[in-house]
Amino acid sequence: MNPETAIASKSQAPPAGGHRATERVREILSWYGSDNPGTKTSIARLLNHGTLAGTGKLVILPVDQGFEHGPARSFASNPTAYDPRFHFELAIEAGCNAYAAPLGFLEAGASEFAGEIPLILKANNHDVLHDEKDPLSAVTGSVHEALRLGCCAIGLTIYPGSANATKMYEQVQAIAEEAKKNGLAVVVWSYPRGSDISKAGETAIDVVAYAAHIAAQLGAHIVKVKLPSDHIEQDEARKAYEKNAIPIGTLAERVRHVVQGTFDGRRIVIFSGGAKKDNDEEILNEARAIRDGGGQGSIIGRNSFQRKKPEALKLLRSIIAIYSGTAR
Amino acid sequence: MNPETAIASKSQAPPAGGHRATERVREILSWYGSDNPGTKTSIARLLNHGTLAGTGKLVILPVDQGFEHGPARSFASNPTAYDPRFHFELAIEAGCNAYAAPLGFLEAGASEFAGEIPLILKANNHDVLHDEKDPLSAVTGSVHEALRLGCCAIGLTIYPGSANATKMYEQVQAIAEEAKKNGLAVVVWSYPRGSDISKAGETAIDVVAYAAHIAAQLGAHIVKVKLPSDHIEQDEARKAYEKNAIPIGTLAERVRHVVQGTFDGRRIVIFSGGAKKDNDEEILNEARAIRDGGGQGSIIGRNSFQRKKPEALKLLRSIIAIYSGTAR
Amino acid sequence: MNPETAIASKSQAPPAGGHRATERVREILSWYGSDNPGTKTSIARLLNHGTLAGTGKLVILPVDQGFEHGPARSFASNPTAYDPRFHFELAIEAGCNAYAAPLGFLEAGASEFAGEIPLILKANNHDVLHDEKDPLSAVTGSVHEALRLGCCAIGLTIYPGSANATKMYEQVQAIAEEAKKNGLAVVVWSYPRGSDISKAGETAIDVVAYAAHIAAQLGAHIVKVKLPSDHIEQDEARKAYEKNAIPIGTLAERVRHVVQGTFDGRRIVIFSGGAKKDNDEEILNEARAIRDGGGQGSIIGRNSFQRKKPEALKLLRSIIAIYSGTAR
Amino acid sequence: MNPETAIASKSQAPPAGGHRATERVREILSWYGSDNPGTKTSIARLLNHGTLAGTGKLVILPVDQGFEHGPARSFASNPTAYDPRFHFELAIEAGCNAYAAPLGFLEAGASEFAGEIPLILKANNHDVLHDEKDPLSAVTGSVHEALRLGCCAIGLTIYPGSANATKMYEQVQAIAEEAKKNGLAVVVWSYPRGSDISKAGETAIDVVAYAAHIAAQLGAHIVKVKLPSDHIEQDEARKAYEKNAIPIGTLAERVRHVVQGTFDGRRIVIFSGGAKKDNDEEILNEARAIRDGGGQGSIIGRNSFQRKKPEALKLLRSIIAIYSGTAR
Amino acid sequence: MNPETAIASKSQAPPAGGHRATERVREILSWYGSDNPGTKTSIARLLNHGTLAGTGKLVILPVDQGFEHGPARSFASNPTAYDPRFHFELAIEAGCNAYAAPLGFLEAGASEFAGEIPLILKANNHDVLHDEKDPLSAVTGSVHEALRLGCCAIGLTIYPGSANATKMYEQVQAIAEEAKKNGLAVVVWSYPRGSDISKAGETAIDVVAYAAHIAAQLGAHIVKVKLPSDHIEQDEARKAYEKNAIPIGTLAERVRHVVQGTFDGRRIVIFSGGAKKDNDEEILNEARAIRDGGGQGSIIGRNSFQRKKPEALKLLRSIIAIYSGTAR
Repeated sequence: MNPETAIASKSQAPPAGGHRATERVREILSWYGSDNPGTKTSIARLLNHGTLAGTGKLVILPVDQGFEHGPARSFASNPTAYDPRFHFELAIEAGCNAYAAPLGFLEAGASEFAGEIPLILKANNHDVLHDEKDPLSAVTGSVHEALRLGCCAIGLTIYPGSANATKMYEQVQAIAEEAKKNGLAVVVWSYPRGSDISKAGETAIDVVAYAAHIAAQLGAHIVKVKLPSDHIEQDEARKAYEKNAIPIGTLAERVRHVVQGTFDGRRIVIFSGGAKKDNDEEILNEARAIRDGGGQGSIIGRNSFQRKKPEALKLLRSIIAIYSGTAR
Repeated sequence: MNPETAIASKSQAPPAGGHRATERVREILSWYGSDNPGTKTSIARLLNHGTLAGTGKLVILPVDQGFEHGPARSFASNPTAYDPRFHFELAIEAGCNAYAAPLGFLEAGASEFAGEIPLILKANNHDVLHDEKDPLSAVTGSVHEALRLGCCAIGLTIYPGSANATKMYEQVQAIAEEAKKNGLAVVVWSYPRGSDISKAGETAIDVVAYAAHIAAQLGAHIVKVKLPSDHIEQDEARKAYEKNAIPIGTLAERVRHVVQGTFDGRRIVIFSGGAKKDNDEEILNEARAIRDGGGQGSIIGRNSFQRKKPEALKLLRSIIAIYSGTAR
Repeated sequence: MNPETAIASKSQAPPAGGHRATERVREILSWYGSDNPGTKTSIARLLNHGTLAGTGKLVILPVDQGFEHGPARSFASNPTAYDPRFHFELAIEAGCNAYAAPLGFLEAGASEFAGEIPLILKANNHDVLHDEKDPLSAVTGSVHEALRLGCCAIGLTIYPGSANATKMYEQVQAIAEEAKKNGLAVVVWSYPRGSDISKAGETAIDVVAYAAHIAAQLGAHIVKVKLPSDHIEQDEARKAYEKNAIPIGTLAERVRHVVQGTFDGRRIVIFSGGAKKDNDEEILNEARAIRDGGGQGSIIGRNSFQRKKPEALKLLRSIIAIYSGTAR
Repeated sequence: MNPETAIASKSQAPPAGGHRATERVREILSWYGSDNPGTKTSIARLLNHGTLAGTGKLVILPVDQGFEHGPARSFASNPTAYDPRFHFELAIEAGCNAYAAPLGFLEAGASEFAGEIPLILKANNHDVLHDEKDPLSAVTGSVHEALRLGCCAIGLTIYPGSANATKMYEQVQAIAEEAKKNGLAVVVWSYPRGSDISKAGETAIDVVAYAAHIAAQLGAHIVKVKLPSDHIEQDEARKAYEKNAIPIGTLAERVRHVVQGTFDGRRIVIFSGGAKKDNDEEILNEARAIRDGGGQGSIIGRNSFQRKKPEALKLLRSIIAIYSGTAR
Repeated sequence: MNPETAIASKSQAPPAGGHRATERVREILSWYGSDNPGTKTSIARLLNHGTLAGTGKLVILPVDQGFEHGPARSFASNPTAYDPRFHFELAIEAGCNAYAAPLGFLEAGASEFAGEIPLILKANNHDVLHDEKDPLSAVTGSVHEALRLGCCAIGLTIYPGSANATKMYEQVQAIAEEAKKNGLAVVVWSYPRGSDISKAGETAIDVVAYAAHIAAQLGAHIVKVKLPSDHIEQDEARKAYEKNAIPIGTLAERVRHVVQGTFDGRRIVIFSGGAKKDNDEEILNEARAIRDGGGQGSIIGRNSFQRKKPEALKLLRSIIAIYSGTAR
């Protein structure tokens, strides 16, 4: 079989093996002109792996729920997920671009699965044994650990709106600087939360767009936010939305607004699936809205690993098919 | 030939290409006798770039609004401004002396526009998702990042009057020390704010002059404050103003007072334009007052980038013309 | 399905995109049990790229000739090779596993070709402007530079037999330790040379096997040596070869002996093509002997880049076909 | 006068003051894709200063003769040149792109002339009080000193062919790595010399091209070599020149060959004027040959500062006119 | 209960698992009063492992022959020994106290055999591809590598008598200091050799005793020397031996003299077996003489791994039985 034909017939095939990167990947890399070739290579590794390789789209499996919510809430519904190797296998078999997890989960499989799936070290974490209004993540990983484990990126959560946000911004500053020196990419989970933000405000369009913008200003290469609602939280912001008639009626419009607010689309923005949903169609519709709004992809945790592997694979592959264009 | 005349007659010609610095630039550099030649060179780069090169005056484009107020409030009125490249282009084409922005915005253009406009890394930032009485900026940049991005200065905000002011003064101390070792200039945005200062007090003449003085005492080479009103906030201060009959009736007088309070004019003091104004003449009058009061220039953010580029260029060039002497 | 067969039938398909590593790759990685997952990932990146991805075989393009012999001797026969981008393109288009070059050549393309071909920073070099009996390579790169450029390995030459060998062994010790901490792989070029070794001795079977063993003892993950002749250089060694009747009559037997001497085949050993040859069949026969003797592959420099690109591609692909099993 | 017209009428005017960089400068910067924006900015500062600003050509004044040959041999013919300020003024008034000197000479003027001329810290040096066959330069400056003095580049000499060349290559490796991290450019003076090279060989075409290539492989952004003669020093090289019929008959052809050998023209190569010549026309003819051969410019030391200032200015300006196209 | 009896009656049972160390081990540890508990623990690990655990005696398997003499001379007579795992297994199964080898050999098994046998990293090495009168070992390992691989000691060779001895003494100084800080033990192989020592002198009693003393003075915890002959090399020494009528007639007397010279027995001294011998009884007699002379044990390389495993095990166990007292 001729390799050219092979590639042509299955467009998701990664550009490795004698081919230049796709135009789209090269375009995305051009957004990161201040980064060294090492960091560009790490971003390319994420973009060139899995079923979506070369498309510029990303579906990432994140599993930090055990730390965030405890093991029973996270894994009891699918007990094979207690085993860290389950998540490596799920990400690999589903054709994801990457797997993101805290230090311990990565340590428990990085050697066995070396080279099989790009890894993102989730390097700060938060738990709910202490329940605070203004959350603060603890730094639980480092750039050295990311290099030791073969990761291509380091991930950090910030909680804009928290009285402790300043500390987390400074975590990002210090760790991102070190990561970039060493050729790693930086992923920032930006989740508004805190004493001055209402529950509805955490996913309000103005707040989510603002949170994504902050992550990009902090130097993130990849920004991850929750899907925004059409609620507007801040009065001053409402004036701007109304005066400028910013369209936020549909989910796709809101995605588009977030992407625009994140350097006019010149940073990769991906969206999280949130809590487990019973209705798969709802999840797929979200992926369609992300795609239609110009989002770069999804990061799907609880909705994948909290079900049996065959169903998890089915869902992840359905989402991937939406991004790859092989499904509507 | 008198250097002032020389500059006046060919105001756009940069002093490079076979010329000594102007007398005025050399005079300004003489104020910074404790600084190493690297820092002096960085100050000179700011003074020798753009339309005002050589005049000793500065017009700087700052764009940290996205971080401070969120993207929609900042850019929705001129959506091309969502793209970080817009601001580089605006600063360059308007003939500004420099462009100041947070890490992410600089990273998104520093390579593409290398060498075209002096850059100032705005290395701490604050957002309004958490609304506090006593604001604290987060450190979001570093001297190493400034060097990596080719900046000639690092900029920091302090909020004198905040219960957290101490922490920000210490940010300035540590970062300015490191910046000066490495040949960078230090710009301090000094914005009084906090639980003990009234809204009117934030721009009161006594408070602004005090805030500018603190910035200079912290070692800033360039101090940026808001234009002061004739309100006097502090009773103890009022006695001094009244006893000594300090003239603060006109804006130019107040500018002169602030400049005097900042080492008798031996530090560069520039003034911010504040929120977007509908009336351009008001903005130009402010520039005239700054000029007449002996201020070194303006830092114009929202009033420039929140309008379409042709209008933004028109306004910036009008302001620059006031400082260069080609307009009244 | 047998992994060998699988690979044979779709030889260009990289193992990325939803697949576990091949059995062979996992077996090879098992040899490096003392290495961290980062280094294993880097070795896997080399093994999983290009046409030979997954087979456990490697064909690498090395271009340090410009430094070693000067530009005219290296590139005048194919002047497009003066351009550093030529070599990136050649390695990518030929389907090589990796491209190895000194700092300058990598810097001249690492950004443009980020993520398209695994890179090896050749971090010491030697030139012939000073002609010495006992050569010493200069350290011309570092682990930090390798990370900055996105390399997955660092390469160093040792000249066993040189009076300066001690210094080069110590270069390897220090740099390999740092590389392994940071998740890089280590490639050692082991080329016997020096005042006590005859010209024939430089490729003598006893000397080459010894040189390969030294490289492995120094901690190399990948050892590169020249193809050995049946000459025996050292008298003490001859006794061992004769007493134990070690078969060294054919090139394949000699390759097998070198591989055995390098930890009984538990380290990757690849062989260099040497000076440009006029007869392609001779080069292909060497590849066949390497394959038959259990060598891991070839590193082909002058015989590829010193010819026009179509011929270079043709030769490299013919060699790769021998290793992949699609050609005899 | 309209600034647009101003620029149009004197094409060498620097791109500062409201203009994007010239196409040529942007093209040159594109060669350095692995460098951070800081280093690109430093290269741009060199390219955008002086009469040749924006043309992509460089004329640099280097004054390390005092260290290399002693003060009397260097300055007695023009005693005003004993004063370090003379050289700053000469470089500035002549419209040079930069001034390069050892630590002491820069310290003696960097503050007084801050911002008036880009500086290059010549960070290793050699003297003739100890006369050795195989010279070794001493490290006499550092990246920190370059930053402290406001330099945009650090310069290092290597003597390929010296038995001590290895040590100097390692100086370049360590210092260039540090320089690039901190946003400086790296200039390497590559002067073949040593026990195995004949006097004629020091400027032999094969040796000079080889020396330039080594400097580029060591990571230099700017390579400085002597003008080559048509002598060929090494027998192995002669075969390559003859077999490939490399044209080296004229000086322009030899310049072209050196430029080609230095990454096919994708690194800046400039040529030194050498010892003082009596005949100015000879010097100008050399500049014409450098221009015609595609060299990036000249570095003119003894032929400028060893004459009275008016004559020195006249010569430097004549050379600059050749590069700018205003003279034949 | 007498500790000797205790050991004799259950010779393979290590004292671990609920027992205090034997009196003898505690006595030996008392010699190292200046060492931190970490280093004492490391010495105890060596003394408490294998058949001789608790006896204060040591039999160690060293395999650096591949580096020192090349793979064919080392392993061709027993080809299974090409595989690094063979040596781990041999040391474990024979009941040795420890296994000592260079970096590469340890890396090739340290993970697989973790915790099964105390490891000594042989951290400098010499090869015979360059034949010099005054040998110098290259540093091929480090304290960090020893810690990474789980070693309890680091081993270094010195060649007293070599013109390069100074360099090796300084290697020991630096590495031993670092090792002791990190809780490792230090083993020094002290082998007199060099241009001023005759072949017979290398094992002369005066020279061997002197070499052992130097090792102890350099801070070695364990000193390894060759068995001495009754030859006296140095005239000045001969006077002392004769004047004081030092008994050196039997091997046991000479062992006793070496032990006395090494801090009167307050340092562990072990003796090497040397080249492969055909007559096992000769080897066993040497062990008896070491035991009778108060030596601490043997380090047996070529005489063990150069034979098939069953014979190698038989010999090692016979030697161990001599030290444990279960054989004569």
